[in-house]
Amino acid sequence: MAEETVTGSTDLSLKRPREEEVNGASATAVTGEAMETENSTDNGTPGISSVIPGWFSEISPMWPGEAHSLKVEKILFQGKSDYQDVMVFQSATYGKVLVLDGVIQLTERDECAYQEMITHLPLSSIPNPKKVLVIGGGDGGVLREVGRHSSVEQIDICEIDKMVVDVSKQFFPEVAIGYEDPRVTLHIGDGVAFLKAVPKGTYDAVIVDSSDPIGPAQELFEKPFFQSVANALRPGGVVCTQAESIWLHMHIIEDIVANCRQIFKGSVNYAWTTVPTYPSGVIGFMLCSTEGPSVDFKNPVSSIDTNTDYNKARGPLKFYNPEIHTAAFCLPAFAKKVIDAKAK
Amino acid sequence: MAEETVTGSTDLSLKRPREEEVNGASATAVTGEAMETENSTDNGTPGISSVIPGWFSEISPMWPGEAHSLKVEKILFQGKSDYQDVMVFQSATYGKVLVLDGVIQLTERDECAYQEMITHLPLSSIPNPKKVLVIGGGDGGVLREVGRHSSVEQIDICEIDKMVVDVSKQFFPEVAIGYEDPRVTLHIGDGVAFLKAVPKGTYDAVIVDSSDPIGPAQELFEKPFFQSVANALRPGGVVCTQAESIWLHMHIIEDIVANCRQIFKGSVNYAWTTVPTYPSGVIGFMLCSTEGPSVDFKNPVSSIDTNTDYNKARGPLKFYNPEIHTAAFCLPAFAKKVIDAKAK
Repeated sequence: MAEETVTGSTDLSLKRPREEEVNGASATAVTGEAMETENSTDNGTPGISSVIPGWFSEISPMWPGEAHSLKVEKILFQGKSDYQDVMVFQSATYGKVLVLDGVIQLTERDECAYQEMITHLPLSSIPNPKKVLVIGGGDGGVLREVGRHSSVEQIDICEIDKMVVDVSKQFFPEVAIGYEDPRVTLHIGDGVAFLKAVPKGTYDAVIVDSSDPIGPAQELFEKPFFQSVANALRPGGVVCTQAESIWLHMHIIEDIVANCRQIFKGSVNYAWTTVPTYPSGVIGFMLCSTEGPSVDFKNPVSSIDTNTDYNKARGPLKFYNPEIHTAAFCLPAFAKKVIDAKAK
Repeated sequence: MAEETVTGSTDLSLKRPREEEVNGASATAVTGEAMETENSTDNGTPGISSVIPGWFSEISPMWPGEAHSLKVEKILFQGKSDYQDVMVFQSATYGKVLVLDGVIQLTERDECAYQEMITHLPLSSIPNPKKVLVIGGGDGGVLREVGRHSSVEQIDICEIDKMVVDVSKQFFPEVAIGYEDPRVTLHIGDGVAFLKAVPKGTYDAVIVDSSDPIGPAQELFEKPFFQSVANALRPGGVVCTQAESIWLHMHIIEDIVANCRQIFKGSVNYAWTTVPTYPSGVIGFMLCSTEGPSVDFKNPVSSIDTNTDYNKARGPLKFYNPEIHTAAFCLPAFAKKVIDAKAK
């Protein structure tokens, strides 16, 4: 079992899950009379969505005028950490669902797409990754995927919110299995501060599995953070960060690309994939490398040995393969135009 | 302006649009007290969704337990044709939206992805397409895209529901502009019957822009229809059919692939793309060719001449490019496994 160090302030213990049935107006978080209002607090953090009785609806100023809803069978957990509202529910058709501040983070049915792509896009783009840092990703799904690379010797994870880790271990064992790896060290704390303290050139790869840039993850989309990432990477090291939706957030993506272009002197690329329960059905990734041995992200150089005990125990990949790796870098005309302009 | 022939039964004239504001319980189609029930009629046709006040929600037994919702500014049209319920509304953030039997067919914001991909995937895969048949696609968006290929001399379209054509011409001029092309002939009637009457080997390409296989489009997913398509195509001709979502409908896709494999003796391929307002955020296409000159769908052989008057007038492509053409054939592991097994 992985060692656990606590570098940030968190003393919230896991609350007893509420196992009551959702049957109309009684369960406050996933029911309500109308979803008309966007329950934003003053600082723009989306609150728990109000919804149609018996359904959870994802409403946010990040995607105004639309909402994806899932039918709720049962609320399994509701809590408030130092950082965000945390909820888990059993959905009718997407398995269990993890929600932070009213936004779906993962469902059992489609988590494979996000976890596999955000992990294997960077790790398959360099030969023999050994030291990997994950920022965010407290659910453990990225750890599970990093572990598939048999060259990896050390996996550090810095997650700000211990409640996310605890909730994942209790309700998402097939995701939190990522923690059951002796190579993993969990650091509970602020990823920005953690990275600043990392000695220069420590990691082969950094994966930033963040929530949206409204709320606790805001700094993870800003230039000083990218500078810390670049510093923590070896020459020719790689970073992959969650980078929003080409359909919804081209203005955010434009800024991220411009920032990365200034900071990462190797290559700067945008890739994307399908995740049905994310807004607009897609999510993107920034893939950058530091100056040093060149990295051609579009053509993977290492593959996952499916015959290791680790991979046999976890079963085959559900989503990633080398073809979809390369395809992920092909952008629709409207996005290519903007990103290519910023990347030059 | 295109000639119009009527081969089917339709005498419904366009109803006067309802321009009342949506403000709660007064507008029946897009409001209601709860979306709990899936308003299916006995034959499985989904009815108009009931929703949260002021929002339209897409509920169907085709995607149980989930619903995508758009905020409604104004209902512009509601009608009932011989075949289906037809609705147009102005959404808050996706432009105008066309809904058939409670299912979103297109929004102004993301229609480019579907129309461009279903058209240019087949037409760019063969040299100099001349005669093209569109089945369904009454909104005219596919016609608009077919017209971009300057080699095309004849475009026939067979749409069963005249109300769809009329509504599109009234509310979606940038889509229905496809009809303003002297190469286009509109046939109002049953696509199945129309194809049976087509002399063998008539077309270079057939595009089947259908709704889901519940309702009027059901026969367009069955083997006799594919046989008629194969017959209507010249040797080495191509067909592209709407083929549902890999996330939601692998069982339907499996059957379609197996059917096509029996009937199309050239090549049989599955491609897919992102469309945010379609269920699960993706839509797939079956691309098949008849026996004859071989067609390598994954590598486009013809490109669109952007300097023609036609293309200058319609502006640049928003979504399609040769890279995304090739990428569309790369499938996630879970889908590749099923489709490759059926395709052999």
